[in-house]
Amino acid sequence: MSTQRGLLIVLSGPSGVGKGTVRSAIFEDSNCDYVYSVSATTRQRRPGETDGVDYFFISKEGFEDLISQEALLEYAEYVGNYYGTPLASIEESLSQGKDVFLEIEVQGARKVRERMPEGIFIFLAPPSLNELESRLTDRGTDSKEVIARRMNKAKEEIELMSHYDYVVVNDQIHTAVNEINAIIKSEHLRVERVMNSIQADINAYFEKEANQS
Amino acid sequence: MSTQRGLLIVLSGPSGVGKGTVRSAIFEDSNCDYVYSVSATTRQRRPGETDGVDYFFISKEGFEDLISQEALLEYAEYVGNYYGTPLASIEESLSQGKDVFLEIEVQGARKVRERMPEGIFIFLAPPSLNELESRLTDRGTDSKEVIARRMNKAKEEIELMSHYDYVVVNDQIHTAVNEINAIIKSEHLRVERVMNSIQADINAYFEKEANQS
Repeated sequence: MSTQRGLLIVLSGPSGVGKGTVRSAIFEDSNCDYVYSVSATTRQRRPGETDGVDYFFISKEGFEDLISQEALLEYAEYVGNYYGTPLASIEESLSQGKDVFLEIEVQGARKVRERMPEGIFIFLAPPSLNELESRLTDRGTDSKEVIARRMNKAKEEIELMSHYDYVVVNDQIHTAVNEINAIIKSEHLRVERVMNSIQADINAYFEKEANQS
Repeated sequence: MSTQRGLLIVLSGPSGVGKGTVRSAIFEDSNCDYVYSVSATTRQRRPGETDGVDYFFISKEGFEDLISQEALLEYAEYVGNYYGTPLASIEESLSQGKDVFLEIEVQGARKVRERMPEGIFIFLAPPSLNELESRLTDRGTDSKEVIARRMNKAKEEIELMSHYDYVVVNDQIHTAVNEINAIIKSEHLRVERVMNSIQADINAYFEKEANQS
């Protein structure tokens, strides 16, 4: 069968839900063969960081060129630095049949959906808002008012869930990882992704038969 | 969270592809918690068969009552006996949140899709038509002409695949079983199935907050 195009997997969800932890657990599995999408940034490289692994470290001018060339899937500015997702490397991996994994906050995911609606969008949700509140309270770093504001933000972000394809609840990490892997496996089996190669097999078989008779 | 309604899983595919073998392997797994949909039939019970397990054994009049009451999801007649899928037990299991598993030939699956379009339809395909031909030839029971007719029938059935949601290739049985389980797991995570219970959690949390302040 011909190689199927890779899938763009977008994992997002409210801050504090554990996106980074779940993504790390997925990539720690030795059977994992997704490609992690490396972001570009204009911030300075920190000790221990490797260019092309942790980030693509580029100049402000270089980044603004990428913006004007529409070469970024999405980008944002935080505290004077740009962060963005380069399209070229994603496109290359997808066309080689590799699945590309993107972990991104809710606003970024929205922009990605506009550019690549065919992606698989997975929303990571907390087990409950009570549980999210307990986690924030137990950290002991935020005042009651700050926690209330975070909870309102979480509510708004969770209500954007309808723009996603799947919801995975991050209660037990290994369960969340298994569920994300099941989603990716099953998406590859969707009839519209498999049909062409099976039809090609049918055509080849009956052409061969016709030539023999 | 509230209990999600169960899913109707329909496994179908051309004859000879190994539907029964794959279904058995799924139900042999001790973790399997799908309900197998037991068919009704008017044929005589054979030694070793149990009513309500292998089939519901009913009279011809009883079966025709079910037909006129539209109490069957689908039915067919083979060599003078009726075979059909009773709706009531399926509906009961689904409303209890249990997934119901149906293994059925291609014509029956088409009728089920008309009655319950919300089901998850999985097409079991042979690894290739060459492979299917080899299997039929190796059995040594059919003439060249019969095999050619079977291959044409398989072609027609495979081309109905576009009416399904997923295609699983039956090359290695354990791979096919894993893929079917992944499909069922991921379908439970689709946003439209999870959204209501998460929205209910949000509402409960903010009502509680409002009452406390």
